Amino acid sequence: MDIAVLGAGSWGTTMAIHLNSMRHNVCIWTKDQEQLEEIQKTHYNKKYLDVKLPESIGITTDIEYALKNKKIVVMAVPSHAVRSVVERIRGVIDNDSIIVNLAKGLETSSLKRMSQVIKEMIDNPVVVLSGPSHAEEVCKHIPTACVISSDDINACEYVQDVMMDENFRLYINKDLIGVELGGSLKNIIALGAGISDGLGFGDNTKAALMTRGLAEITRLGVALGSDPLTFLGLTGMGDLIVTCTSMYSRNRRAGIKIGQGKSLNEALNEIGMVVEGVNTTKSAYKLSKIHNIEMPITCEIYSILFEGKDPREAVYSLMTRNKKHEMEDI
Amino acid sequence: MDIAVLGAGSWGTTMAIHLNSMRHNVCIWTKDQEQLEEIQKTHYNKKYLDVKLPESIGITTDIEYALKNKKIVVMAVPSHAVRSVVERIRGVIDNDSIIVNLAKGLETSSLKRMSQVIKEMIDNPVVVLSGPSHAEEVCKHIPTACVISSDDINACEYVQDVMMDENFRLYINKDLIGVELGGSLKNIIALGAGISDGLGFGDNTKAALMTRGLAEITRLGVALGSDPLTFLGLTGMGDLIVTCTSMYSRNRRAGIKIGQGKSLNEALNEIGMVVEGVNTTKSAYKLSKIHNIEMPITCEIYSILFEGKDPREAVYSLMTRNKKHEMEDI
Repeated sequence: MDIAVLGAGSWGTTMAIHLNSMRHNVCIWTKDQEQLEEIQKTHYNKKYLDVKLPESIGITTDIEYALKNKKIVVMAVPSHAVRSVVERIRGVIDNDSIIVNLAKGLETSSLKRMSQVIKEMIDNPVVVLSGPSHAEEVCKHIPTACVISSDDINACEYVQDVMMDENFRLYINKDLIGVELGGSLKNIIALGAGISDGLGFGDNTKAALMTRGLAEITRLGVALGSDPLTFLGLTGMGDLIVTCTSMYSRNRRAGIKIGQGKSLNEALNEIGMVVEGVNTTKSAYKLSKIHNIEMPITCEIYSILFEGKDPREAVYSLMTRNKKHEMEDI
Repeated sequence: MDIAVLGAGSWGTTMAIHLNSMRHNVCIWTKDQEQLEEIQKTHYNKKYLDVKLPESIGITTDIEYALKNKKIVVMAVPSHAVRSVVERIRGVIDNDSIIVNLAKGLETSSLKRMSQVIKEMIDNPVVVLSGPSHAEEVCKHIPTACVISSDDINACEYVQDVMMDENFRLYINKDLIGVELGGSLKNIIALGAGISDGLGFGDNTKAALMTRGLAEITRLGVALGSDPLTFLGLTGMGDLIVTCTSMYSRNRRAGIKIGQGKSLNEALNEIGMVVEGVNTTKSAYKLSKIHNIEMPITCEIYSILFEGKDPREAVYSLMTRNKKHEMEDI
């Protein structure tokens, strides 16, 4: 099978390695000439990943060449770049190519999910992939399970057949809205988990934050049309767990720096890669106001990131809220 | 308030420290004369905890003395010892003392929850406490949130008022069955998470295992009369997270040793404290057969613990099951 991967960050590169290991014919597109030359010369993509790329993976900066005759086009760019990349491929991509979107986030201006952004501009089938999947592990073929979802169930089943093997399980979940929101909103809680760690709090504190955090992102998800059970699955709880507990998570690492007293800008500069949770916090905060959903943790993280609130005071606010019954706000 | 704590393991000692910090008058009962002397002499309970006990905490081996005029009696013994301890306090405990049970497990012979075992023998109100709460953190006043539950809602609210402060939040959840099962069954998945870590698998693998694990213990919980939402809360997901990701968890540490190739007995000997998940796996396995509930992860862990199955083969069985849709078995 001929597959294009748009974007050569850690997740795109990993997906190329995974698909290549399944004997697909993979071509990566990057807009970065220097990165192209590095990969062609060294077969490493040093900034993002510490494994060697097989020589049979192609790489190009020519997007027309990359897209030509591809049954599947994997979209592996940051969420804020999805719109501009789709603009570039419109009119170039084959009509029957299936887009598999890996970007997790909500468009800051429109508050739209990524599949909505893509569908606004092109008619190709769009399948989204989400779940607990640090690239650093998938590229080493460590057992991983994710979910895929789409409005087009045939496209979903096709992608499952093409992209799944015994180390990379793909489950279908028909709740497209929930799958996309789970993958996006969990990054907010990961920032919070990092902040708690950065403040020196414990595993108990973080588990409480994650649990209450999942409850509130589920509430927002339901208001936006998701099935609450989706948030109990791989794109919700599963993705939340890896993102909140692993050092591979940029969102958590950014949170740790903020908890240790750094400003948002200092933290982001030190990470040096996109931290999706920052924009997602802004979007979720807006959505919670529009839909009148109580999201105390998101609100406190918003205050820390954008209003200069002291993180320790934010945790104190959360721990002293006047709630007596666990389920009273679900 | 006068409070007795029965049991001087890590959780009992911690609860005594917490309640003492709230200015309650606390007396610990232990059956172990040597431990009593160590604590009286050094104010440390070295085997279990590395913090100093305040001198104002009493300790005795005389159970009648410990129970006298106590409004609250905290039961902090391993689950397999609950029946024998209740037999000892029957006829001695004041009629209006509230029992707060901390033991998490199911009685292996009867498959009963701990509150059922206690209620079988005495009429006192029983409140159960569960949630993500490593003793090693609570004793240092690190922010922690748990749930309490009871058939007797007045007793529950009374306990909440007496035992909660700004570092130790207690939420009421009326689903007694779910609260007890969440706290017990999660230890099975923690063994599995440890096994995965011991085999050298990654954060992705463990997150998938925890997610699918919570789904199957929720299924069993619902069959036994629980509200599924309880498993999304602190006693379910919350407790699962700390138990599966922290090195404080004995269940996880035992699993790691088994994943590294040790036998169950070797692993238990090296831990040297009660590993509740082992008996709970046996009980849940029996319950899944009685109620005809599909519990693939529990079955594989049962096979590893009691039938000598190779852990790597068990993971392979789980990763290659013929499932196409995420929610098809929920």
